[in-house]
Amino acid sequence: MNHYDIIIIGSGAAGLSAGLYAGRYGLKALIIGAELGGETARAGVIENWPGDIEVEGFKLIMRMRDHAEKNGAEIVAGEVKSAEKSRDNFVITLTNGDTHTGTALILAQGSNRRRLGLPNEEELTGKGVHYCVTCDGPVYTDKTIAVVGGGDASVKGINLAAQYAKKIYLIVRGSEIKAEPINRERMEKLGEQMEVLFETEVKEIVGENILDHVVLSKEYNGSTNLDIDGLFIEIGAVPDGEVANQLGVSLDEYGYTAADTMMVTNVPGVFVAGDMVNIFGHFKQVVTAAATGSVAATSAFEYVKKHK
Amino acid sequence: MNHYDIIIIGSGAAGLSAGLYAGRYGLKALIIGAELGGETARAGVIENWPGDIEVEGFKLIMRMRDHAEKNGAEIVAGEVKSAEKSRDNFVITLTNGDTHTGTALILAQGSNRRRLGLPNEEELTGKGVHYCVTCDGPVYTDKTIAVVGGGDASVKGINLAAQYAKKIYLIVRGSEIKAEPINRERMEKLGEQMEVLFETEVKEIVGENILDHVVLSKEYNGSTNLDIDGLFIEIGAVPDGEVANQLGVSLDEYGYTAADTMMVTNVPGVFVAGDMVNIFGHFKQVVTAAATGSVAATSAFEYVKKHK
Repeated sequence: MNHYDIIIIGSGAAGLSAGLYAGRYGLKALIIGAELGGETARAGVIENWPGDIEVEGFKLIMRMRDHAEKNGAEIVAGEVKSAEKSRDNFVITLTNGDTHTGTALILAQGSNRRRLGLPNEEELTGKGVHYCVTCDGPVYTDKTIAVVGGGDASVKGINLAAQYAKKIYLIVRGSEIKAEPINRERMEKLGEQMEVLFETEVKEIVGENILDHVVLSKEYNGSTNLDIDGLFIEIGAVPDGEVANQLGVSLDEYGYTAADTMMVTNVPGVFVAGDMVNIFGHFKQVVTAAATGSVAATSAFEYVKKHK
Repeated sequence: MNHYDIIIIGSGAAGLSAGLYAGRYGLKALIIGAELGGETARAGVIENWPGDIEVEGFKLIMRMRDHAEKNGAEIVAGEVKSAEKSRDNFVITLTNGDTHTGTALILAQGSNRRRLGLPNEEELTGKGVHYCVTCDGPVYTDKTIAVVGGGDASVKGINLAAQYAKKIYLIVRGSEIKAEPINRERMEKLGEQMEVLFETEVKEIVGENILDHVVLSKEYNGSTNLDIDGLFIEIGAVPDGEVANQLGVSLDEYGYTAADTMMVTNVPGVFVAGDMVNIFGHFKQVVTAAATGSVAATSAFEYVKKHK
């Protein structure tokens, strides 16, 4: 069992930025991450991290990891099984049995992809059903895929997928696409390679061991069956609230952790950062994650000074 | 007279980040800056921009400028003389007489260095009296300098100045130095080259055309006169509120522009970002400036969509 001034759960842009700042404050910091890089690493090419016109998300994360380590933060790969507050410390137990204690805690766990909630969805995940076209799309070279969801992630993913997929359907529940104009314009230039099915939902996912087709809520080309090789569900994300719940951290009306602008929660010693917080509404970017990470570390530093 | 969807006043990290995002949103954006780079450009080596272990502030600003321009933002050097809201537009007039109109406005003007308010201070500015040891310190190679102020900027500046100055005094009004631990530790290793004068103030700045000495509030080595070649006043900054005042933007109790977390002010169409806002209290960093710039652009985009 090792004791740290501060334990940061989550090793995406928010957690790594918090680790860098914590290190600069002279705090002994541990970053625990189930998956290095979080959303940033999964984003493919990032064009809106100020100062880098184009950077591979994963490469940016490697730079942030090196930066945090350079400032003394330790990073371990692992999944948190339980978190509890003992008298003066937080006790964090990993699924591999390791236990660490910390004076302060920063939750920067990001969010999990939202699911359609259909039968077969879980069984076929990774077998034709995916949640990140940017990450898993390249497998479908010369194949037909469908992307569910009318947001920016879908459109950005389609623009990337267009480089290898034969045909792409975009299935949108409503009658509108809500993407950054620059990404929508690029998609509109794709022509017949892609087609948008508005006011359409996926009602069934059909396949044994591997995806065969989906059933749509309304006919397309005379049938509700749509034959595809890959289905990408990009309908947003829900914050990963399990550890927050265990610690009694209050959530806001959308299920995100509630915090003031200094990233202070209702539980003394627990701070939050990144996509778990709604400070900027639905606007969640690498730069806002990194900024809130730096703020959370600053608030945690103030706390540790008083409670060490 | 040119019309823009959005005019951004200020070309530091906040303004350039806002410009980059505005460009991505497809907005016609103009960035007007009195001094490219603001605080970031003046900061010397920056070690806490996530993903860059060490980067020259000015070089980081060049990257951000290129990034904003790459996304279509125009940047002009100029000082704003007046800003007013006409019926549907903001009219911005520069001191050179140029006029631009914008549907929305982002104020990202940062802050001005705080002055001691002593006689001679203004007359001797640039003639021995300075406000940024990082920027102007190198002139004092093998000379004796004094830095006023017990904050992080002073300590960081001293660590840099130690590479060339013969002797450095740090003049602190209180009995405490409030700097990042990593910077304080570095300073403490300097030994006799530097000396801290606690509970001491500068009462007079003496010199004709060039700084000769300062008079201290209490004796040091038997005299209140301290002979120095350069005086660096690093006692913080006050937000640049003139344009905000002209437009009727409300200020908070500290004189910073008041805005919600989406950077929306009380004046419809006016948004703010960077060091002009107190969203994260006194914690003002390159990464928080860049993040609030991206948020302000997002809110301005929503506004322009409705008012164009």
